Amino acid sequence: MIDASDPRLADYANLRDVELRKSLEARHGLFVAEGEKVIRRAVAAGYPVRSVLLTRRWVASLSDVLEGLGDRVHVVDDAVMEEVTGFPVHRGALAAMERRELPSVAGVLGGPSAEGPRRVVVLEDLVDHGNVGAIFRCAAALGVEAVILSPRCADPLYRRSVKVSMGAVFAVPYARMTDWYGGLAELRAAGFRTLALTPDQSATPLDRAVMTERVALLLGSEGDGLSSRWLREADEPVCIPMSPRAMDLGVDSLNVVAAAAIACHGLMRGR
Amino acid sequence: MIDASDPRLADYANLRDVELRKSLEARHGLFVAEGEKVIRRAVAAGYPVRSVLLTRRWVASLSDVLEGLGDRVHVVDDAVMEEVTGFPVHRGALAAMERRELPSVAGVLGGPSAEGPRRVVVLEDLVDHGNVGAIFRCAAALGVEAVILSPRCADPLYRRSVKVSMGAVFAVPYARMTDWYGGLAELRAAGFRTLALTPDQSATPLDRAVMTERVALLLGSEGDGLSSRWLREADEPVCIPMSPRAMDLGVDSLNVVAAAAIACHGLMRGR
Repeated sequence: MIDASDPRLADYANLRDVELRKSLEARHGLFVAEGEKVIRRAVAAGYPVRSVLLTRRWVASLSDVLEGLGDRVHVVDDAVMEEVTGFPVHRGALAAMERRELPSVAGVLGGPSAEGPRRVVVLEDLVDHGNVGAIFRCAAALGVEAVILSPRCADPLYRRSVKVSMGAVFAVPYARMTDWYGGLAELRAAGFRTLALTPDQSATPLDRAVMTERVALLLGSEGDGLSSRWLREADEPVCIPMSPRAMDLGVDSLNVVAAAAIACHGLMRGR
Repeated sequence: MIDASDPRLADYANLRDVELRKSLEARHGLFVAEGEKVIRRAVAAGYPVRSVLLTRRWVASLSDVLEGLGDRVHVVDDAVMEEVTGFPVHRGALAAMERRELPSVAGVLGGPSAEGPRRVVVLEDLVDHGNVGAIFRCAAALGVEAVILSPRCADPLYRRSVKVSMGAVFAVPYARMTDWYGGLAELRAAGFRTLALTPDQSATPLDRAVMTERVALLLGSEGDGLSSRWLREADEPVCIPMSPRAMDLGVDSLNVVAAAAIACHGLMRGR
């Protein structure tokens, strides 16, 4: 059996060390899919498999995925799995996958006259991988057709994002802006009306916002919300109406996933 | 300075060991609030303080809370804090608080003719503390006036629930059913129309459900959703309409917090 220090297992090292993983995955152009369901979705989405690390009991159910991988299939026991990855991998199977080059923002949005997405969500500097994954899952469930990330937004292909998204990160097209400052101009050029979601209750309630043919909803980071630049540049600030009692209860906002869910649901209107 | 093994710090032991904490907190009738904001909310909600464990730099900003606690204030350095709790406490201050006796379900709901909540959420067997906390935050933000828990639902006063809720667990009244089997009968007796949220797209879309004077929305557990008993017994099954493409994308449901957020938002209708 292969040993935890074998270089062929380097792709799986220290999966809970975020900083180390970020640099390792960027350097080698890889990401890690966890569990049978998510691995299957990554393969179905066309990502090439670099290798698979799994315990014996998963070999049979993943046999079709493993076929043709030859010596890039590494069957180990739980102890080796934990030694390599740094945690007990309950789902018993990991796959190291090749990243692909991301399309450009223009490529995902299409031109103003082209066929293309009509409802998109734009994430500004969300730093939590779980939140990014959860928002992709909402987007896929509720008909949002693409996600655009600001330059500093967390990586949708990071293991935790992938897992929380249930693989929706493979299914919803996305792109990363190269320019935060001018990011909204590109959305407008593609014919999108930009709605900036804010907790500010004097903004237009989302249910009453003008929804044109193409709408982009802007969502801000966990702590500070949208930057003042994006709030100012957007076509319309919109809010989710809160209970008049919420402030008395000490609750002045929703968390970003809850807000995103309500907003994605609201974007289905007029479709 | 007090030592990590001092019995006066026993309330704060191993905060990341869920099983140990559950039994310790039940036995001593305590819970732990983390961070200045949450501690203040617990105190404001009237929970008595057993003791406070904090690092020196938080003493000044919490001085009003600490007043009168005498030798139940334990100032330690980061290393002792970590040794006692088992993790680096970034928020620098913890308070052990006394639990209070929970009201009965009938006490929270009030009789059919009484003044009482008109919108409640009922959680069946949610096991994740973070999800329970997030749903309390949604409830507080969106005007849901009470939460009812099934007997096996996770504890809203567990540290992680409290933290994720941003203290909303102190502000939204809640009760725990003693009887799962007959739980819905008690809701009906109090005059509530029960809506069972299901991913089944043949159910009534939530936006078109009949909302009477008093509505209770039933939310099922993370994995399996509502039990067949509750689904069958509810007055009406309701769903959040998903994109027709979602199934093709491999997404067959929303996560429970996203669903709860959309549902709480939907319950504001007709208020």
